[in-house]
Amino acid sequence: MLTLFHHPLFASCRFVRLAFGEYGEELALIEEKPWMRRKEFLSLNPAGNLPVLLAEGDVPIVGASVIAEYLDETRGVLKRDKRLFVEGSMERAEIRRLTDWYLVKAESEVTRHLVRERALKPHMPAEAGGGSPDSTAIRAARANIRQHMKYTNWLAGTRHWLAGSRLTYADLAAAATLSVLDYLGEIDWREHVAAREWYTRLKSRPSFRPLLADRVRGLSPVSHYADLDF
Amino acid sequence: MLTLFHHPLFASCRFVRLAFGEYGEELALIEEKPWMRRKEFLSLNPAGNLPVLLAEGDVPIVGASVIAEYLDETRGVLKRDKRLFVEGSMERAEIRRLTDWYLVKAESEVTRHLVRERALKPHMPAEAGGGSPDSTAIRAARANIRQHMKYTNWLAGTRHWLAGSRLTYADLAAAATLSVLDYLGEIDWREHVAAREWYTRLKSRPSFRPLLADRVRGLSPVSHYADLDF
Repeated sequence: MLTLFHHPLFASCRFVRLAFGEYGEELALIEEKPWMRRKEFLSLNPAGNLPVLLAEGDVPIVGASVIAEYLDETRGVLKRDKRLFVEGSMERAEIRRLTDWYLVKAESEVTRHLVRERALKPHMPAEAGGGSPDSTAIRAARANIRQHMKYTNWLAGTRHWLAGSRLTYADLAAAATLSVLDYLGEIDWREHVAAREWYTRLKSRPSFRPLLADRVRGLSPVSHYADLDF
Repeated sequence: MLTLFHHPLFASCRFVRLAFGEYGEELALIEEKPWMRRKEFLSLNPAGNLPVLLAEGDVPIVGASVIAEYLDETRGVLKRDKRLFVEGSMERAEIRRLTDWYLVKAESEVTRHLVRERALKPHMPAEAGGGSPDSTAIRAARANIRQHMKYTNWLAGTRHWLAGSRLTYADLAAAATLSVLDYLGEIDWREHVAAREWYTRLKSRPSFRPLLADRVRGLSPVSHYADLDF
């Protein structure tokens, strides 16, 4: 069994767990607090970011999109119609664009800030950046959610899955991101009917179950978080 | 000829120009100021970031690493020992890790801030974020350069090219980043002999020539910028 260093509220880590889950491959999970800059972790990944996969031979594979490419090259290509990626270069570029949209753009505009301010800072030591939430950062992140929900709603209303006719990494990246924001109660689903229908489909998949069981210290999820009918 | 929307001082755009240059393929360049949020550009790429490649059939391919994967899939695989990528999954993960190190991590800790504060803000309209440079942001970015130069120096001293025995995307990502910082005169090469020797090799390649000829409005490069013997 491979090992994943992760944090339960990081979208990039949830994305990797979903991808392995879709392929029916269990991972040994180690929860890492990257802000603690643990020596043993930094020796695996001097960049200090999550997720890190210990692949075959305990070689560290660093970062969500790098792990996704590795997973496709070593497993995905054999999965036929269950593959989370495709053959054509243009379609691959579209899947990668959307994966980056959620794991890089939405992450830097929304997710990272809300997770840090609302879930992590209260439990971080002051020297690692802990303290009271910064309400300006929260307001700025919240102002950006709407744009990402609108885009997701547009994609979900235009295509069966976000990158086209089949389930791909793009759906997992978007669902991982939205699941974190939903845990925090930050999403108003009423306004985004197509996104909600698409997310319900994702949420009902077996790969999603472990994410719906995640709980973080001192912060309960919104009441509908684990409901398949919300 | 394919078209690249780029900015001459963005490392991610320089990376793509170097990659096409190594394959001997000329690009039509269109300089884009993403902070102006030009409608025609946003219709190609709603994320609004650079670079964007108009590939075959004028399909937009968005983002440096997505373009690099596309380039490898459509050209690189045919280039044999000139290929900027490799076959093995583990080695591919290492090249992708280092490419991200420079184009994502160094970008967000150093490059983006120095480019924005020193080169762009003086010419940006106030409503797009223009104005006087923020000296706190400049100081913070400068404090982070040392760490990235030390790491580059260690890689260059340990391996012939940064990801191993051959020239790959990792070298182009690092050199693109360092070339921007060098233009701004932000690198003290005396302390980093191995990095300097490696960068000199890169700088002497024909693919680098167009970058050394780049000039941006109101900001001349440091005197040694285009010298091959600096």
